[in-house]
Amino acid sequence: MDVLRVSATSPARMLAGAIAGVVREHGRAEMQAIGAASVNQAVKAVAIARGFLELEGIEVVLVPTFTRVMIGDEEKTAIRFTVERR
Amino acid sequence: MDVLRVSATSPARMLAGAIAGVVREHGRAEMQAIGAASVNQAVKAVAIARGFLELEGIEVVLVPTFTRVMIGDEEKTAIRFTVERR
Repeated sequence: MDVLRVSATSPARMLAGAIAGVVREHGRAEMQAIGAASVNQAVKAVAIARGFLELEGIEVVLVPTFTRVMIGDEEKTAIRFTVERR
Repeated sequence: MDVLRVSATSPARMLAGAIAGVVREHGRAEMQAIGAASVNQAVKAVAIARGFLELEGIEVVLVPTFTRVMIGDEEKTAIRFTVERR
């Protein structure tokens, strides 16, 4: 299962569709976001995806954790979001 | 139970302590954030609070939803975060 990499310009609704698709297939989805604008897009996408999945009787919750990632030579703190069935 | 209003300058660690305290007392906590910087602080605070609460055997998850709030005369979209035991 791939990690969905969220950027500041990721359209929330498209990302929501991707989250819902991965949850339908795998029961969970993983996202990674670096920086406030990306984190915001990820959260909005999950709020939208919850609406999509609720229509199918699937309720998901979000588990945010910190992770360290290398961007070029630089180590950065990212937020890892696990979206999973309650 | 009060809603924790998160601002762009809310220190994540202090907010995490508040979340953990409310979850200990009420089993859940509610936060509200408007704008990317506030949403980011809220998410970081939950990631930190998860660490605090795990030490006590409490696992929490996050449920983000959209809500509309009035700021003066203006209606804005906010993110409502419910932090609750899994």
